[in-house]
Amino acid sequence: MKNRIIALLTDFGTEDGYVGAMKGKILSTAPGVDVVDISHDIEPFNTRQAAFCLSNCYSYFPDKTIFVIVVDPGVGTSRKGLVIQTANYYFIGPDNGVFSFIYGKEAFNSFEIDVDSILWKVAPTFHGRDVFAPLAAFLANGKSINNLITPTKKVVTFIKPIKKMRKNHFRIPVVHIDHFGNVILSLQKKDFSRLVKSKDFRIAYRSYELDKILTTFGEVASGEILLLWDSSDYLQIAKNGGSAAKELHIAVDGEVEMFL
Amino acid sequence: MKNRIIALLTDFGTEDGYVGAMKGKILSTAPGVDVVDISHDIEPFNTRQAAFCLSNCYSYFPDKTIFVIVVDPGVGTSRKGLVIQTANYYFIGPDNGVFSFIYGKEAFNSFEIDVDSILWKVAPTFHGRDVFAPLAAFLANGKSINNLITPTKKVVTFIKPIKKMRKNHFRIPVVHIDHFGNVILSLQKKDFSRLVKSKDFRIAYRSYELDKILTTFGEVASGEILLLWDSSDYLQIAKNGGSAAKELHIAVDGEVEMFL
Amino acid sequence: MKNRIIALLTDFGTEDGYVGAMKGKILSTAPGVDVVDISHDIEPFNTRQAAFCLSNCYSYFPDKTIFVIVVDPGVGTSRKGLVIQTANYYFIGPDNGVFSFIYGKEAFNSFEIDVDSILWKVAPTFHGRDVFAPLAAFLANGKSINNLITPTKKVVTFIKPIKKMRKNHFRIPVVHIDHFGNVILSLQKKDFSRLVKSKDFRIAYRSYELDKILTTFGEVASGEILLLWDSSDYLQIAKNGGSAAKELHIAVDGEVEMFL
Repeated sequence: MKNRIIALLTDFGTEDGYVGAMKGKILSTAPGVDVVDISHDIEPFNTRQAAFCLSNCYSYFPDKTIFVIVVDPGVGTSRKGLVIQTANYYFIGPDNGVFSFIYGKEAFNSFEIDVDSILWKVAPTFHGRDVFAPLAAFLANGKSINNLITPTKKVVTFIKPIKKMRKNHFRIPVVHIDHFGNVILSLQKKDFSRLVKSKDFRIAYRSYELDKILTTFGEVASGEILLLWDSSDYLQIAKNGGSAAKELHIAVDGEVEMFL
Repeated sequence: MKNRIIALLTDFGTEDGYVGAMKGKILSTAPGVDVVDISHDIEPFNTRQAAFCLSNCYSYFPDKTIFVIVVDPGVGTSRKGLVIQTANYYFIGPDNGVFSFIYGKEAFNSFEIDVDSILWKVAPTFHGRDVFAPLAAFLANGKSINNLITPTKKVVTFIKPIKKMRKNHFRIPVVHIDHFGNVILSLQKKDFSRLVKSKDFRIAYRSYELDKILTTFGEVASGEILLLWDSSDYLQIAKNGGSAAKELHIAVDGEVEMFL
Repeated sequence: MKNRIIALLTDFGTEDGYVGAMKGKILSTAPGVDVVDISHDIEPFNTRQAAFCLSNCYSYFPDKTIFVIVVDPGVGTSRKGLVIQTANYYFIGPDNGVFSFIYGKEAFNSFEIDVDSILWKVAPTFHGRDVFAPLAAFLANGKSINNLITPTKKVVTFIKPIKKMRKNHFRIPVVHIDHFGNVILSLQKKDFSRLVKSKDFRIAYRSYELDKILTTFGEVASGEILLLWDSSDYLQIAKNGGSAAKELHIAVDGEVEMFL
């Protein structure tokens, strides 16, 4: 009654049939599996948006869910294909940062897919259908894929660490600007608690200064800037009724200051 | 073999992972349930479009389907969350009119969700994931949710009643303008039959007069205005090959006259 | 455990509830069937895009999958409804060319749906819900639909045959321009092999001449034109990093020359 789940996240759109081909391949290889669409509307090649989307949803899925992420501008180049194993899940996709938030939140083992050891036909431009989908289906079938993967240590992440400048001064990179212009910082709740403890703190960027983390947008007037925990517990700078990124003129990989 | 169905209708788009989080939560709580996408492309905050979309499809679903509607501009305010029970279905979502057409067509019991009695963590901005999805999953599991809901009588609808002006003169509000500019009136086939019986009738608005209900657009010349039953048996004013709303300069909550 | 699959491909979008109605109808008629979305984002009325999308994915689905295609600008006119049966699959939809690539690649039996012999109510503008979906559900149930269909020989295709001009000179029509401007030719790998054998060949259009089929875009410089096999093994003219159709000023039903 309880089927194994394979969840798909791509930037393919659906109108060319590429997602259909992946679904067909999975359902042919692992009959009875439950194929769940997360999204196929990721902005083409926007690996950060894919990473953020995955971060917002993966932890709600049942144990043993297998996630297949195909936002893969480097397909056909030497970029690695990865299988990431955490306590509860498998993640399969390209090594281009789409798993950055997973690395930040989970203990994991990482494996490189050895495409050359695959015996079936692999189109050089469509690893989603010919590499990632079949491997997901094998895992769903409870089949070993050990002959197709090799442990690897080095994986790509675009989450940059916080820099300690002085005892009470840190520099925090911007990890992502979301759809609404919210500025997601490379600072999770658990790390914030460890650093700030019960002390006062101040986040500063240009002439902006914020020293309180609020619960919801409505706690400030329309047009005001505020700090919030996003739904994945990353600290974000937001603007009630607008784009914080535009107001602050800040972009991905920009940095804000934190003073304790 | 026959799984319980939970059907989802939201204005989230899919690219931020919010729909993914709802799906994951449902599949974790009610393993084996069949999660069906109705739409995630409702225009943001367009509760009337969501209501119309639901009206066009719900009655085709199997008995015991549970519908979760999250077009919820008022989330985090004091707007109520609802569970609507009809002979065949459950509907779960915000009390902002998204169930208006259900109220117009079905006998129902309505319950307010008592969010304060929920013991798990509820994000104030994401009742879709933390309130509506879990309740749907409990119902799919056959579990009682009586401790989380209270009967309520007053529910929000944007369907306004027909006004009787004189014996043979009625005023009929416009309920919705659809994607094509069709003008959906607050008059269902069954009410029309009761009012008009075998008499002649005339729908009038500005200089436009219509006294026949046709079967299909092609029965009038291109550019002509006509009356039709829409696929949910509401009377609509349409234009062959164009937008009736634009031609008539009429909007939601406008009114047309009916003379017998 | 292994449910029958019905795969849907439409140009409806999802926001009006029409796809929801089809899903509900299928799940009510054939409980436990696995309804799979291929796409609902086909450009409205773009039957060629639908045909291409279907061509790119159908062969990856499990045996016995039933495909329902509703890109149907002619609904309500005298255009035929079809059931196409191949060795592995059923395809149901309008007779307007959406199955063109299937005809080109598979042995098939074709049947016309006799809508007048249907005893339930059929909306003249919505055969997707009232004709194609129920027939798909009956087939999924293993029920005969022979009383509702009649063998037919003549079906609409927009794939035009290659013209033999002289012994070593052929004229090849353009079947489709895809999303990226790739120019898909009416020439499949197997036919190419038969015609060209080990001889040299030359594809010519205006001042463009191509005599090699490459494996991937990156084998030419950015902005260069090349020949490739597309993922359905049709020959395509492509441009690395741009639209070949725009550069060549060629459109659907245009023709290129092939010299041996």
